[in-house]
Amino acid sequence: MNIDINNFFTPQEWQKIQEFSSQKETPFLVVLLNIVERRFNELKEAMPYADIYYAVKANPAVEILQLLDQLGSCFDVASVYELRILQSLNISPERMSFGNTIKKSKDIKEFYDAGVRLYVSDSEMDLKNIAQNAPNCKVLIRILAEGVLTAAWPLSRKFGCSQEMAYDLLVMTRDLGLVPYGVSFHPGSQQREIGAWDSAIAKVKYLYDMLLESENIKLQCINMGGGLPSQYLDKINTTKTYGDEIKRFLTDDFGDDMPRIIIEPGRYMVANAGVLISEIVLIARKSRTALARWIYTDIGKFGGLMETLDESIKYPIYTPKYAENDKEKAIIAGPSCDSVDTMYEDFQYPLPLSLEQGDRLYWLSTGAYTSSYCSVNFNGFPPLKAYYL
Amino acid sequence: MNIDINNFFTPQEWQKIQEFSSQKETPFLVVLLNIVERRFNELKEAMPYADIYYAVKANPAVEILQLLDQLGSCFDVASVYELRILQSLNISPERMSFGNTIKKSKDIKEFYDAGVRLYVSDSEMDLKNIAQNAPNCKVLIRILAEGVLTAAWPLSRKFGCSQEMAYDLLVMTRDLGLVPYGVSFHPGSQQREIGAWDSAIAKVKYLYDMLLESENIKLQCINMGGGLPSQYLDKINTTKTYGDEIKRFLTDDFGDDMPRIIIEPGRYMVANAGVLISEIVLIARKSRTALARWIYTDIGKFGGLMETLDESIKYPIYTPKYAENDKEKAIIAGPSCDSVDTMYEDFQYPLPLSLEQGDRLYWLSTGAYTSSYCSVNFNGFPPLKAYYL
Repeated sequence: MNIDINNFFTPQEWQKIQEFSSQKETPFLVVLLNIVERRFNELKEAMPYADIYYAVKANPAVEILQLLDQLGSCFDVASVYELRILQSLNISPERMSFGNTIKKSKDIKEFYDAGVRLYVSDSEMDLKNIAQNAPNCKVLIRILAEGVLTAAWPLSRKFGCSQEMAYDLLVMTRDLGLVPYGVSFHPGSQQREIGAWDSAIAKVKYLYDMLLESENIKLQCINMGGGLPSQYLDKINTTKTYGDEIKRFLTDDFGDDMPRIIIEPGRYMVANAGVLISEIVLIARKSRTALARWIYTDIGKFGGLMETLDESIKYPIYTPKYAENDKEKAIIAGPSCDSVDTMYEDFQYPLPLSLEQGDRLYWLSTGAYTSSYCSVNFNGFPPLKAYYL
Repeated sequence: MNIDINNFFTPQEWQKIQEFSSQKETPFLVVLLNIVERRFNELKEAMPYADIYYAVKANPAVEILQLLDQLGSCFDVASVYELRILQSLNISPERMSFGNTIKKSKDIKEFYDAGVRLYVSDSEMDLKNIAQNAPNCKVLIRILAEGVLTAAWPLSRKFGCSQEMAYDLLVMTRDLGLVPYGVSFHPGSQQREIGAWDSAIAKVKYLYDMLLESENIKLQCINMGGGLPSQYLDKINTTKTYGDEIKRFLTDDFGDDMPRIIIEPGRYMVANAGVLISEIVLIARKSRTALARWIYTDIGKFGGLMETLDESIKYPIYTPKYAENDKEKAIIAGPSCDSVDTMYEDFQYPLPLSLEQGDRLYWLSTGAYTSSYCSVNFNGFPPLKAYYL
């Protein structure tokens, strides 16, 4: 295995990263905003039928939010804290949805008072809270999608309800004086299998038909959540392929009567724009006959690489030494006194034998779910520094 | 299952917590310093033969560090950042050890320049770095202990080397002009099984004998690391029992020629002193026939409950409603848009059926590995507030 930097950055981009980072002390994250812009445009082109709500949680840096604001993106908001950031940037509430199904009544009220009129729910209690604090608003009911099984970062049963319960909740939405706007699902984060969208859309279609037939409720919108993959180690399809295939699934089910489509890309938009630059602290063999080296870097799970949990996300790790040398599998771990802070142990990474302490390792595709995930000061280490160029 | 608050706090302590917290907005952590003091004294009494080095990483709050300083504790330090905090409190470097086996050369130098003379290592490369940057210092070589299998928060193979390699490294320590001070091990964090210490001590004894016989190296110290358990859901022995039994294991192996003993309690010292106060955000059933409720609280894995990873640490969760009601198993999850942020799903917690949104849940024994583990701003949520009374 070799990681080719040209698959991730143009020569100009890579040079820019190198120049910016050469004198800086590791670890730190660099995000190239032009790549975020490129991803946004690519997605708009591949899925012209969808409204883009950027999932702020993937990377809430103001530089990214401002750029996406200028590009015309809408925003999927997870908490009042994210709402307040967007408000401070003068982003219109009409371009926001409150996508978290878990919310305090007073938080719903804060969103409503701010002017947000689109909410997602999956339970009776939450729906009643919405009715009370955000009267007349549009509500999407989130269903469980099976795609979680093939996703790299699975979403389990924490979000979404069964199809029958979604039916009940959509009826209840109407009865509570809210607008039963449509159905929401999430195919699973970093979902590479296009089929996950197909089965979820079929479920939505069934709900559309049932509600129209039995309750005369005409739903208007499908929120397909996030899930569109970024380039990590494993192969993915092109954005155009995802866009075309999902369009085909939608047309198969809805024909000319196409509802409004919302997508909530987070990882897709920002992951590939980031590179986390670390240094090798130590290389160790733990017995006289050890077949694998332990390579310890100055960045770890609690410094921003939390998505290596269960080795879920396999970041491409680049070193200029890939070209020149023999490789041997290595176990890669972080700098803290905690063994959970081991990134790859079962999946042993082939890394050049000539690596030495002080060498830099570049963690590619780290623009999403890194800087905000990192711990406050675990083992005393400060939060990850991040630069947006 | 009922959680009895009297097993965790005296009536006076509980009243103090209640009075302090009643008007505060959740979530937040309260730590009672008198309990930290009680734990310190209990441990000193139970293990009078050991020098206590508090593992700063368990909770680096200055209030705790100052208290333990006054009580005469020494400190096990994981990074230069922790070192700088201790320096700012005017704690003498003679009472510190640099216990992290993963360290940059320049960090070793900073410790040496600060006056720290005791280091722990487990690899050739690190040992050479110590020789270069901390000449003539004392070095403990850390071995792998099998106890990790029975520990609640396992320490895997990330730290420590094989016995033969420890032998080689201790010889090398001498040859590099350093002091081969002794052997270090860690029985595994939250280690309830006393036998884990027995087998590790036997391994140490073997190294002591071999090195004396073959190399005329007389080791002087055993660092037994942390691992002493705190009271979570599962039963543990009294501190006195651990102290007495470990003393017996040591005497069996070393008789009258007892080396200096160091212990590095972290969790033991602070876990039981803390209570994390949260509120129920939402209670949901996800299908018409769901047998378990989802109970969502305003604190989650990324807000400080990271040790619920793989449901490793089972915190006692107290509610005043335990007394009065029928109970039913519940799945307990945090407030973020991330399904990894689910604390207990396989281990479904029996909680009162009468619980409602807005009710407070008290996460007991949360004084260790919570406030420093929490994320900077995942999903926008701010870091955990903590108060030391």
